[in-house]
Amino acid sequence: MNNFIYEIPTKIFFGKDQIQNLGAEISKYGKNVLLTYGGGSIKRSGLYEKVYAQAQTFNLNIFELGGIDPNPRISSVKEGAKICKENNIDVVLAVGGGSTIDCSKFICANALDEVEDPWDYFIGKAKVTKALPLITVLTIAAAGSEMNFGGVLTNEDLKLKLNTSNPILRPKASFLDPTLTYTVSKFQTACGAADIFSHLIEVYFNLKADFFMLRRINEALLKTVIKYGPIALDEPDNYEARANLMWSSSWAQNGFLKAGDAINWSCHPIEHELSAINDLTHGLGLAILTPKWMEYCLNNTTLPIYVELGVNVFDIDSSKDSKTIAYETIQKVKDFFYKDLGLSDSLSKVGIFEKDFETIARNACKGKTLNSFVPLDQKAIEDILMMCK
Amino acid sequence: MNNFIYEIPTKIFFGKDQIQNLGAEISKYGKNVLLTYGGGSIKRSGLYEKVYAQAQTFNLNIFELGGIDPNPRISSVKEGAKICKENNIDVVLAVGGGSTIDCSKFICANALDEVEDPWDYFIGKAKVTKALPLITVLTIAAAGSEMNFGGVLTNEDLKLKLNTSNPILRPKASFLDPTLTYTVSKFQTACGAADIFSHLIEVYFNLKADFFMLRRINEALLKTVIKYGPIALDEPDNYEARANLMWSSSWAQNGFLKAGDAINWSCHPIEHELSAINDLTHGLGLAILTPKWMEYCLNNTTLPIYVELGVNVFDIDSSKDSKTIAYETIQKVKDFFYKDLGLSDSLSKVGIFEKDFETIARNACKGKTLNSFVPLDQKAIEDILMMCK
Repeated sequence: MNNFIYEIPTKIFFGKDQIQNLGAEISKYGKNVLLTYGGGSIKRSGLYEKVYAQAQTFNLNIFELGGIDPNPRISSVKEGAKICKENNIDVVLAVGGGSTIDCSKFICANALDEVEDPWDYFIGKAKVTKALPLITVLTIAAAGSEMNFGGVLTNEDLKLKLNTSNPILRPKASFLDPTLTYTVSKFQTACGAADIFSHLIEVYFNLKADFFMLRRINEALLKTVIKYGPIALDEPDNYEARANLMWSSSWAQNGFLKAGDAINWSCHPIEHELSAINDLTHGLGLAILTPKWMEYCLNNTTLPIYVELGVNVFDIDSSKDSKTIAYETIQKVKDFFYKDLGLSDSLSKVGIFEKDFETIARNACKGKTLNSFVPLDQKAIEDILMMCK
Repeated sequence: MNNFIYEIPTKIFFGKDQIQNLGAEISKYGKNVLLTYGGGSIKRSGLYEKVYAQAQTFNLNIFELGGIDPNPRISSVKEGAKICKENNIDVVLAVGGGSTIDCSKFICANALDEVEDPWDYFIGKAKVTKALPLITVLTIAAAGSEMNFGGVLTNEDLKLKLNTSNPILRPKASFLDPTLTYTVSKFQTACGAADIFSHLIEVYFNLKADFFMLRRINEALLKTVIKYGPIALDEPDNYEARANLMWSSSWAQNGFLKAGDAINWSCHPIEHELSAINDLTHGLGLAILTPKWMEYCLNNTTLPIYVELGVNVFDIDSSKDSKTIAYETIQKVKDFFYKDLGLSDSLSKVGIFEKDFETIARNACKGKTLNSFVPLDQKAIEDILMMCK
């Protein structure tokens, strides 16, 4: 068990109509606000008007950056930072999902420094040293960006997607109103659930076996996603389902479950390269990769973790042979992604073909070996991609 | 599911030798430090010297208030606040368990106001409005005070024990080194585990059924205490056991599991009056009360929660009759307290007799009805005490 420092000060306003506390919370940080958002969904849903009503009540000056892409582009960071500098922005308000929030984190940083190309943060050429305060209003349960301090951006010129993090990028406050996710489409709800599930599984496979408490909590969250993902698809306005999914998404990826262990991600870096190639939705890519990655990594050494997962999360009879339990566990994961969530089960179905596998694999491991659960070099990643084709 | 605000900014330094970061952390808040502690155990264990070594390295001026009682007295609060005022104390460093930390919270408050009798905070005659920063070094896994903002104090003149809370009393940072609990006695380790278990059970029985995620996490923590309590008794220096217990104690009672629901405590207010009468160790009183309280509250309405607990935490066969599961669940709880932890199972064994039951019950409910899981008036509490005699 590693030593660790735990510090997650983000203030969460959870529940219906919490937006009524938004203006007061923003006002703690200043008057000039950059509002960031993605497509027009916040206008269609009426959320946009609610934000402006709060701004009016609290005399806030709103500037806007809309149109942040689902796989957010580094050029949006530049654009946002420019608006901040030109208008003495005090605080950034990100209204959206992981993409908008991730992008806004680096707007907050770039607003206060002289880094010309914010891509430099991601390739080690520049450091995040300070940042404007960030407040978020979450509109989809998925990435967990609302409570953590990392972000993934796409360099559209280089067709690369990279992540980086810094504690000062953690949002000061996040508003989690489950009713705001009622209008999330079936497909995006399914992808969000797949993303949460993947965060949990990757941490579960990496965390040291002696942190029993965190392994059991991880299973608690996995059970929550498995239960409520399908319910949210069938009944989009089921508050209980949306609320349990939303709070789970934050805890799956806010750092608590890792307890300072450096999690060596496997599926995530591979998926980022899939998204970089054809703008695939992140959760869908993870749903395709995860079961095959589990199959690839199963061996006599890793077997116990599959058994632990299968017995504790999927209620597989523990008296069965360990290998049988492991295979049944992988099948249960497939059933969750493909039957319960209705997601595609192969890369060809989403327009990614063998011709790109070499590039994807090389970019995913940067020509080296991912020091992951089972170490993955370029060849191994290509093998996994072939299993997914 | 209620709306709630989640905000737990306490910074946790978890692991072996984290004390080496203590001086730097204290220095963020100032130079003049009031060190509070209980009996002499921190001197016997060498922890006292380590604190002073840190103070020397970081040029801190340490003032001391030792001898804080296991059921801390309101007079200690007065004494501590006086030292703070006379010496321009910048920050309070509590080294100990829940008692020392609870007492220190109100020293932090009273140091900055003119409230003459800090008991007034507990009877609604005065309000906590500001407080010195508090840093803690935890030496026993039990109360959870290291990450929450409440405290229980004893008025030695009135023989009353009351609790109150205020967010500004939450520690700024807490140091959780599991090795510091190696020297906790078997009895105190058992009482600590009983305290954690009781916090979890009372929240579990009160939280609304629709917060599936938090119910599963509560079960994860219950399983952790049930597993590691007995191991810590048998192997006091088992790091895995001490670490899992320690981090569980914080999460059982830092507010996360309640999600804003006002938890209407049952066993806790009754136990406080037991401790007020004869200085009983809190966890022992809870161990005696909890199973009988569970028996008292079992009826057709409450039955499902016993079944949920029994099946999910104690792996009782779900195909059995519900009432059978409920009785087996209560028996499992008794087995945990009395067999696994070796605690006493009746009030007479700890020197509390029928003659005091009326007073205890009246003080516990303040002559009204506890609006608890099952509402408990004075008569009901007396009945429970009779079941415990």
